[in-house]
This record gives sequence, C-alpha cells and structure tokens, in this order.
Amino acid sequence: MTTTATTHKISKSPITGKEYEIPATPDDKAGIDAFIALHPGKKVVVVQGLGFVGSVMGLVVANALTEEYAVIGVDLPTPASYWKIRSINEGIFPILASDPKIDIYYQRSREKKNYYASFDAYAYSKADVVVVDINLDVQKRSSVQKDLEGYDVDLTPFKKAIAAIGSCCKEDVLVLVETTVPPGTAQKIVRPLLEEALTSRGLPSDQLKVGHSYERVMPGPKYIDSIQNFYRVFAGTDEKSAVAVESFLRTVIRTDEYPLTRLGNTNATEMAKVLENSFRAMNIAFMVEWSRFAEEAGVDIYEVVNAIRMRPTHKNIMLPGLGVGGYCLTKDPLLASWARMNLFGSEEKLGQSERGVQINDKMPIYAFNYLKAQYNSSLEGKKVLLLGVSYLNDVGDTRYTPVEPFYDQLLMEGAQVTLHDPHVKYWEEKDSWINQDLDALLQENYDVIIITTGHKDYRNNAALLDKIKSQPQCLLYDTIGVLTNEDIRTVSEKHTVKVIGRGDI
Amino acid sequence: MTTTATTHKISKSPITGKEYEIPATPDDKAGIDAFIALHPGKKVVVVQGLGFVGSVMGLVVANALTEEYAVIGVDLPTPASYWKIRSINEGIFPILASDPKIDIYYQRSREKKNYYASFDAYAYSKADVVVVDINLDVQKRSSVQKDLEGYDVDLTPFKKAIAAIGSCCKEDVLVLVETTVPPGTAQKIVRPLLEEALTSRGLPSDQLKVGHSYERVMPGPKYIDSIQNFYRVFAGTDEKSAVAVESFLRTVIRTDEYPLTRLGNTNATEMAKVLENSFRAMNIAFMVEWSRFAEEAGVDIYEVVNAIRMRPTHKNIMLPGLGVGGYCLTKDPLLASWARMNLFGSEEKLGQSERGVQINDKMPIYAFNYLKAQYNSSLEGKKVLLLGVSYLNDVGDTRYTPVEPFYDQLLMEGAQVTLHDPHVKYWEEKDSWINQDLDALLQENYDVIIITTGHKDYRNNAALLDKIKSQPQCLLYDTIGVLTNEDIRTVSEKHTVKVIGRGDI
Repeated sequence: MTTTATTHKISKSPITGKEYEIPATPDDKAGIDAFIALHPGKKVVVVQGLGFVGSVMGLVVANALTEEYAVIGVDLPTPASYWKIRSINEGIFPILASDPKIDIYYQRSREKKNYYASFDAYAYSKADVVVVDINLDVQKRSSVQKDLEGYDVDLTPFKKAIAAIGSCCKEDVLVLVETTVPPGTAQKIVRPLLEEALTSRGLPSDQLKVGHSYERVMPGPKYIDSIQNFYRVFAGTDEKSAVAVESFLRTVIRTDEYPLTRLGNTNATEMAKVLENSFRAMNIAFMVEWSRFAEEAGVDIYEVVNAIRMRPTHKNIMLPGLGVGGYCLTKDPLLASWARMNLFGSEEKLGQSERGVQINDKMPIYAFNYLKAQYNSSLEGKKVLLLGVSYLNDVGDTRYTPVEPFYDQLLMEGAQVTLHDPHVKYWEEKDSWINQDLDALLQENYDVIIITTGHKDYRNNAALLDKIKSQPQCLLYDTIGVLTNEDIRTVSEKHTVKVIGRGDI
Repeated sequence: MTTTATTHKISKSPITGKEYEIPATPDDKAGIDAFIALHPGKKVVVVQGLGFVGSVMGLVVANALTEEYAVIGVDLPTPASYWKIRSINEGIFPILASDPKIDIYYQRSREKKNYYASFDAYAYSKADVVVVDINLDVQKRSSVQKDLEGYDVDLTPFKKAIAAIGSCCKEDVLVLVETTVPPGTAQKIVRPLLEEALTSRGLPSDQLKVGHSYERVMPGPKYIDSIQNFYRVFAGTDEKSAVAVESFLRTVIRTDEYPLTRLGNTNATEMAKVLENSFRAMNIAFMVEWSRFAEEAGVDIYEVVNAIRMRPTHKNIMLPGLGVGGYCLTKDPLLASWARMNLFGSEEKLGQSERGVQINDKMPIYAFNYLKAQYNSSLEGKKVLLLGVSYLNDVGDTRYTPVEPFYDQLLMEGAQVTLHDPHVKYWEEKDSWINQDLDALLQENYDVIIITTGHKDYRNNAALLDKIKSQPQCLLYDTIGVLTNEDIRTVSEKHTVKVIGRGDI
C-alpha cells in the first residue's frame, strides 16, 4: 500500500512471467473516461482492492443478476499489484483458481467490456457504489519459534485508502466496506473520514451512505459461489445506508435462495465476521492440547473426534493438523481484541481469542519437533519431500500457510527439501517455483516424505504407499491425518509411519 | 458415599416426605435371594448407583429389547440414598421427570417384578453384568466470588465402590463402567483392583471383563430415549471385554437405528466423554468475553450469533447465559486435566479447558453485579422474584445450577427472594420448597423480576409482560435472552427492561 513505485519500477506477473513498467505518474483519466463512455446510463461500481476478494467481487458485480453495471477495479501502482491491473485489461485474469466459473464470468465481462482495471483514484469520482475490498493487516511480533510476543494494528494504509475515496467521490456515493475490519471501523473511522472530506470539499454529507457487509469468500472450486450463492450479513451506519446496501446486494447475490440478514448496526456485522473466525480459530486451539493428551494416552484422536461428531450438538468439533493458515483465522481474533481496547476503550482484551492465535501459531513448531525426535535431534543433510504448501485442502492458497514456518525450520536444520503441491505453481511468499509432477518426484529417494496439506491427491495414493514399501528406510510422516488406518497397516509392517495424534497404531 | 448411617439414622424422601429408618447392619441377603428366585435362568444385571443415571439405566435394562434380565439397583444405606432403594421397592420411582416413558417403563417393571433395589453388596455375587453408574466428583476450591482457586479429585469413594464389586463378584463378570471417569481409569484402576480382589479370593482373573461406555443421559422429556435411542461409544480393556460390552449393549439399546461405535481402547472412550463436555464448556466460555465486548459496543449478541449460525460450519456456536450448570460441564474438563497429569504423568495440564471452567464459574457473579449496578450498589430489602432455579430449560435438574450462586449473592445483599420453577418442587441443595403457581406469584408486587432459566413458561408469557406494564417501578431483568425484541419494545416504553448482551434495544 506504500508508494514504492518510484524505487521499484517493475511489476512482474507470476502467472505469465511478463514484466510491466510502472508509470511514474498515476494518471489514467483517459482510460477511465473511455471505459465510462462505453456504458452510458449504467451505474458505476468501483471495487477498491484487486486481491483474492476484490478481483473476484469485481467479476461478480460485472456479472450481476438483475442490473448492468460498469465495473472498475482499482489497486495501487506497486510492484505487487500493478501487474494485476494490466493483466485484467489484457485478458488474463490475475488469479489461478480451480473454479471454472471464474473463466466463464471473466470471458463474459470481456465480451461486455464492462470490467476495467485502473490505478487512478479518479475512478472514485465516477462511482455510484464503492466496494472496499482492501487488506487490513495485523503485524505480529513473533519469535523464530513462533511465540506470539505482541502485535500491532496500523490503520494508516486503510485510512489512506478511504481518504482517496473521499478526495473525489460523489456526495451521494454508497461506500460498502467488505474488508474485515476491527469492530467499530465503519461508524468510528470510515464515515467520519468521508464526511470530513466532503465538508472540506464544500459538499454536504447528508446523502453519503456507508455500510458494512462481510464476504465469506473461499478461494477454491466454489470461489464464485462463495460470493454469489451464499448468505450475507449487512448493516448500515444509518437507515438510508442500510437500505442502499440491501438494494445493491440484491442485484449481485442470489438472495432468493440465500436470504440477506440485516443486523442492527455496523458494529454488529463487523463483530460477526471476526467472531465467526475467532470461533474457528479457538476450536482448533482447543483441540491442540487434547491431541497432545491423546498422544500421551495412546489414543487415536481422529476416531475419538469422529465418534463425538455423531452428536448434532458437536458436529463443529475440529481436528488438529499442522497448523492454522490463511488470511482470516490467523489475525481476526487479534483485530477484534485490538478494537475492544482501542475503539471501545475496554481495559480487557479478548484474552481467550488472543490465546487461540498464540496456540495455533505454535503448531508447526510442535510438528517439526515431533519429526526431529525421530532423528536423534538432527535433520542435517536429510532428503525431504514435502507434500503440500497451501494451507487448505485442494486449494492453491499459501497466505500465512503453516507449511512456511515448518519448511523454514527444515531449512534451518540443513535438510534438503523438495516441494510438491498440485495447486501451487509458484509459492509467492518464498519466491519458489514448485514441481507439480508427483510421479516424477517419487522416482527419487528420500529420507522422509511429509504430508503437510490434506489435498485429495495424497489420499488413497497407491504410488505414494508403494514408494514407501519399496524404500524401507524412508519415514512417511503425516502431520494431518490423511492416511487411513488401513494405509498405515499396509505399509508399516516393514516401514515406519508416523501420524500426529493417531496413538498406538 | 461415607458410612454416616450410624450417626444419621433417617433417610427422607423429598417426593413423598416419608421418613425411613436406616438399618444398622446392611444385610439384605434374604431380599436379594427372594428376588433372584423369582427369575430362574435369567441373567442378573446389577446397576451400581441409583442417581440420575443409574436409576433410569436400571429401568432401561429391566425393559431390555431382546433379553429378559433380572435387575438389581444398588446404592448405599445413607440418608441421601436409602429412601431411593425403599421407594423403588414400594412402587414410587425416585425421580420426577417430564418423560412419560419413565412411568410406563417403571410400571412394566413392577408387573414383571424384575427391578429390585438393595443396599447390600451381596447383590454383586449374583451379577452377570455390573453397570457402574456412581458419581465421581471433583472438589472445587472457590472463593465466595466463585474464583476457582484449585480443585481435587479424590478417587477413594470410587475405588471403594469397585472394591465392593471385587469382594464377591463372579470370576467371569462383565463390569461396564458408565461413570464419567478420568481417562485411564478402566485400564489403570478398575481392572487392576478387580484382578487383585479375585486373586486374593483365590480365583483366576482371566475371565474377568471390564469395559467402558459412556451414557449421554439428558434428564427431561426424552430421558429414556437419551439412553435407549441414542448413539453409544464403547471399548473394552481387552478384546473379550469389548465383545461382551457390545453384546450387552445390543440387548438394551436400539442399535439398528443408533449404531454403536467401538473405539480402540477404554482410554479413548473415557477421553471422548470428557472431551465432548469440555467442548461445550469451552464454547460457552469463549462466548463470555464476546458478550462482554458486545455489551461495550452496543451490539445485540443474540442477533449476531443467529446470523453466524446460518453457516453449517458454525451451527454449534453457543449463546451466553446466566452460567453453566449440571453435573458434567462444570467438572469434566477438570477431571480430564487431572488425569493427564496424574494418570499419564504429563507435566502439562489441559490449560484451556481448565480456564473454560474458571470463566464459566464466574458468570453468575457477573450477572449479579450487572443487576447491582442498577441499584446504586444496594439490593438491601428489595423484593425479588426469581424465575427458574434449574440449570436447564424445561428440565427440573438443579445440580450445580448457576442460579445457586446468583441466589446466594442476593441473600447476602439482604434481598427478599421468592423462587419459582415449574419443574422443581423441592430444591434439594437449598432444602427449599418452591412455589409453582406463577399466576399467584404475579399477584404480588416486586422490585425486580429476574428470569434465570429459559423455561418455555417464561417465553411469550403475556401475564408476565402485563405485570411489568402494570407496575411501572418494577425492573424486568432477563439474564438469558428469553425475551424477544418485540417483548422488550412492548413493555419498555414506560418500564425498564435489561437483557444481558442485548445491546442498545
């Protein structure tokens, strides 16, 4: 979000490898005007932020159900984002996803020419609706061993993005915040900032509309559906705003099948989002110490949890794994706790929720130490095949993946690590290209093969089990319970198989 | 469980008021022999413990689906239990419950004369199966303000009960533990104790069978079904034991509709039970701090949680209330943590689960302080009507009800408290008889009416709302969200209504 454009002049697409020179001055008025001229009379929706949510939200709005919109996706002209803008305009959607609807929707928007991308804030001056889909990050302070020692929430980039809207928006614009924000943000930060900006521009602010509705986007095979065919919760900072948000959402979401839920105020919707994610994070953290206990007691935690899930009241009990990843569960409990103290003046933090993050952050280190214990404490020079780098089954999303600290530890110990992931070609955070041919990789010999993501490619995989059978000295280490008891029995007569939390098999 | 019979010679039925003299010597051989003689060739099942689980488990076994058993319920000749033994034999079932099946099953067992109760350990010598349904308590050390300062698990009474079985049981008996025990108990305590006892009696122990299967009994309208028509998890301390437990359970539980789940060992089944309950306790504790945050942010936590529950992955998110009660959730996390350290030698406790109990124990004090804040810190002399003393909606169970510490605080502050509960005639823990006529109680005037249990009698109750409307100075205080927003709007134009966690209504 910083203007590093002057120092880094190049933005490179990890999809095509193509390099783009970032323009020195962010002026795209001509491009925007030309796009608007193609769509006379249509309402203009600007989506702010072209990340995992915004770029696809833009597609959904361009393919709205009951209205024809002209959509402009806006992001900053930085090395990390500028290529996305160019890519969208050049016919290559900037996100690789297994959902076939992504391509269908994108091609349809190409035909209609109704989805344009830009880096110029001038776009906001044309907007009837601005959908805010930018990131709001938490800066964690953690030790190498992933002990969470503290964290900061810096609202500066977020406020700057809102100020950019305020600098030129229409006085009756609807600003719909979809970003996961600290509860209180729409009411206490977004609305005052925009009102102030309008006032300083000599405009009235009584027609301004500000609302919040959180997305529940799931990158993966149901990417589009997770926006268009799913329940939405929304609220407005006043009655007029709530009505405007509802009207807009009805045009893009299949609300007949997935009815909208309106809450009393934006504090409530903002809280609902971080509460949802904290609930999941805490449920995982809760199971961490139970799976340690199961290890100690020779109990298979998987069979225990499956037995418990037969009760409808206990269906949501979770299984432990390598760790918790993704953009939400790793930070949202902290965002909420920060808001409680900093936006509502409470002297108490959300202690349990913070602790949940703390516990989850340590999981990959536990998994690593568990492995290390098999080797008299040294992994120096060991050949390791790591199966899976994304944080989620069957999805190519590596944001905050727990595989990263696990992998870092392996490298630090001097292991020679080969990576595989069927859904990740390029691991952005590590700037690494990944071999996607598992059969070829299994031609090599390894000291350890480690299953780190629960992709279905690794389940009931005969080639993998045969490999272990044919190479007796290789340890198969399953960090997340992908192997069945039957799998383990098949190979473990001669070989060593370890599954965290599987007890005495 | 102690032999206080010599000092307290009387045991009084809270149902009939009848007093029974406790016999000085616990000899009922003649009674047991006579009962056995009525059922030649039938297998004898002894249920040890005639509490909320055992007395009804006895009924279910006496009404087994595919076998005719002779059932003996055994408890100790103490003031707390002796009347139950006499009551069962005299035709009055010792538990009041809203489940009509209780009476049907009991009358059927009376006709068949196949459910006898006794206090003599001699019964175990006749048993083919002993089902252990006694209590295993945790002694909490808490301050008056309900800060949990520590806890003890004393296995002495439990071991004594197992020793009583060992003193005279058949060498091939099946001992099926249903009690919620610290994980490890069947394997590390019950089986060794029984083997030792057989050996000291000069008998072989290789035919002994010990298993564990936990009940999921819910006192209330589905009392019998919660045993007979519900999923069961079981395990044996060896293969032979597991087979025997399975055969027995198949005769009493409708396993065609509710298939049994066998786990690898008894550590696993014992862990599953306390894990189930810890999951619920922790989920409530998790919501406690969020509902405080909601209060601070003017958010209605009920609407937030209802919105979140639309996601199948979040159905089990819970709502906060007055507190957590009952025999299980208030202690099982502690039992588990104790076992981890004391039976499996871990240096770590189950810290999160313990903390859950700690947080939940404080809830009634929070609710009390919330009320007190309405009265400039004094409740001296205030007339209070407390609606509900049981811990669970529509059930008359007062064990560890959170209403108790709340009520104690009211009394300590000098309030004049009137109790109501449609399901509790006699509040055992407080030795109080309870007025069950709400309409009569509403003829009186009060300073505060407090809803402390979510019985359906208090929902949409026009008489209650009219009362508040007609008596403007009375505060209606809802600790658990029984009132709807509509209810509140109806009465709160002129009157004061407070609902914890309902925000700015």
